Amino acid sequence: MRALTVIPQQKDSLDVVDMPEPDAKDGDVLVQGLALGVCGTDHEISEGLYGWAPQGSERLILGHESLGKIIEAPDGSGFAKDDLIVGVVRMPDPKPCGACAHGEWDMCRNGEYTEHGIKQIHGFGSEQWRVKPEMAIKLDASLAEVGMLMEPTTVVAKAWEQVDRIGDRGWFEPKSVLVTGAGPIGLLGAMIGAQRGLEVHVLDRAKDGLKPELVKDLGGTYHTDSADAVMKKVKPDVVIEGTGAVPVIQGVLAENVPYGIIVLTGISNPGEQTKLDLGAINRDIVLDNGAVVGSVNANMRHYEAGAKALKDADQSWLQRLITRRVALEDFASAFDRQDDDVKVVLTLS
Amino acid sequence: MRALTVIPQQKDSLDVVDMPEPDAKDGDVLVQGLALGVCGTDHEISEGLYGWAPQGSERLILGHESLGKIIEAPDGSGFAKDDLIVGVVRMPDPKPCGACAHGEWDMCRNGEYTEHGIKQIHGFGSEQWRVKPEMAIKLDASLAEVGMLMEPTTVVAKAWEQVDRIGDRGWFEPKSVLVTGAGPIGLLGAMIGAQRGLEVHVLDRAKDGLKPELVKDLGGTYHTDSADAVMKKVKPDVVIEGTGAVPVIQGVLAENVPYGIIVLTGISNPGEQTKLDLGAINRDIVLDNGAVVGSVNANMRHYEAGAKALKDADQSWLQRLITRRVALEDFASAFDRQDDDVKVVLTLS
Repeated sequence: MRALTVIPQQKDSLDVVDMPEPDAKDGDVLVQGLALGVCGTDHEISEGLYGWAPQGSERLILGHESLGKIIEAPDGSGFAKDDLIVGVVRMPDPKPCGACAHGEWDMCRNGEYTEHGIKQIHGFGSEQWRVKPEMAIKLDASLAEVGMLMEPTTVVAKAWEQVDRIGDRGWFEPKSVLVTGAGPIGLLGAMIGAQRGLEVHVLDRAKDGLKPELVKDLGGTYHTDSADAVMKKVKPDVVIEGTGAVPVIQGVLAENVPYGIIVLTGISNPGEQTKLDLGAINRDIVLDNGAVVGSVNANMRHYEAGAKALKDADQSWLQRLITRRVALEDFASAFDRQDDDVKVVLTLS
Repeated sequence: MRALTVIPQQKDSLDVVDMPEPDAKDGDVLVQGLALGVCGTDHEISEGLYGWAPQGSERLILGHESLGKIIEAPDGSGFAKDDLIVGVVRMPDPKPCGACAHGEWDMCRNGEYTEHGIKQIHGFGSEQWRVKPEMAIKLDASLAEVGMLMEPTTVVAKAWEQVDRIGDRGWFEPKSVLVTGAGPIGLLGAMIGAQRGLEVHVLDRAKDGLKPELVKDLGGTYHTDSADAVMKKVKPDVVIEGTGAVPVIQGVLAENVPYGIIVLTGISNPGEQTKLDLGAINRDIVLDNGAVVGSVNANMRHYEAGAKALKDADQSWLQRLITRRVALEDFASAFDRQDDDVKVVLTLS
């Protein structure tokens, strides 16, 4: 079968090649791949920065933002032919730490997890794939065009759960959220904020075009000032940081409000020394009971929350997040970043 | 009556002077002051750095680490003559935000709280004081010698509650804690860690003397290496940061473990630029689901937890935290820092 692959950690190895049919041991739900969302992680893997192939394979099938249609599923699995399905990305370690043993592979303590399309197991960028029924989720049939937005939605569904759980350490009735970054993660995080009835603010660099319109159509306010200026103006109860950009992180940390909760979700690059007034930041966090928490990946309850958030969303708004749909064979075009891209999707069949 | 006072924000104004008897409107529990713990905040107020007197008074009675014995209390108040009593430090704003309205004055959002001996209400450093019964707590009679350790104990009781509540966002069975700073806050935080059955580590600069002995007698391990070196060695599930020292804060942030929870309780000085790799710190917090939370002050449930922690503690160990007891008239000596000081106490009667 045709699949989008890389030789991990080898630059310019991204290619669509013939790969063996999915192995029955990968799960007894057989899926026809419909589409694949392309994200920053895929770009980084395609650039050779990281990525690990399964044992015995030179190539790794790329892709973790999946959407498929079931070809066959066992009776009693909860899945049936033609159901829309999304595979869970992270798999528990075979020798699980307590987090995996409790179904919280997203909270891994020992780093021994594997991840479809990233770490040691093939991704979903192929004409067919297989999953175990307990590591997949059925999507409402109405999501056939946008279901590949599930994986980024699960990431922010987890971020919002973190807000709830950390907020519940005391009295907390948030009224506003600032989301930094108007990429798919940021926009889907803002969408959930709007679904929760919060006043939504989104910060990005793009001065015009689709992103401000998408924010406006959520009922939100779009900002292009510096992070610290926007923090001072908005005074958000919640921040979901999605850029991983150091000046933005610095700005939200420096201007957090009393009892403000900052959820960091953006992967930043290490290696640069930043100058900041850590004494002032620490003092404010202490005196104001501030909270800063990192959030990565998602476990099954976040997939369930993500599926609900997508089903409840305005489907035409979700459609607009997908700015390009590119056939698998044209993968090179999909990986060529364009200015107004929000989410680029590869169609698999 | 004699009281320890300052003219707020006026250096060298610390003095024991005659002050009016406590006003009946301050509460119908009349207390004979027994002792007062002196802490870093008192030093800073005595140095004129901050502090606010009650309206209409030039002087502020200092002191928030209280211990007294009841002279008279109304029937049905839950208090009786000769009970040991400690007053709550922070008072809700008369126009409360939601936090105060929910009894969580320690989680203030609007900064409008007042604090005994610090901000707009007199402290407990006087021969007599008054409190409302709902803003005070009765101590077990066995704590007559050490009850002035309650207030710092409430601060770490709250820090430990934050660990529990934030830990509960997922599976969490902590095994170890690193407490930075072996002052009263740090040692009492370590004591609660030991009461919880954790492996206890304490970091301080003092190479020998009382502090290492007190840690050893808790069953803990004492460290004097840099914070990052100790973090790498110990890999603590929980950090309670009590120094407010920027290099220590930087070290614990840089080396936090997966799902590690850092509670910041130390007040640092703003104004200095620190160089650090914020990209690396953010990346680790995100990928490891790290949490950093500030904690200040305490509300009633933390006073209750603190009273229990003190009652359950080894009383002779607690006694050793009090390295000097100084008569009120000798306040100048109490405020003269000595090398082996842990907690200096003024005796009021």
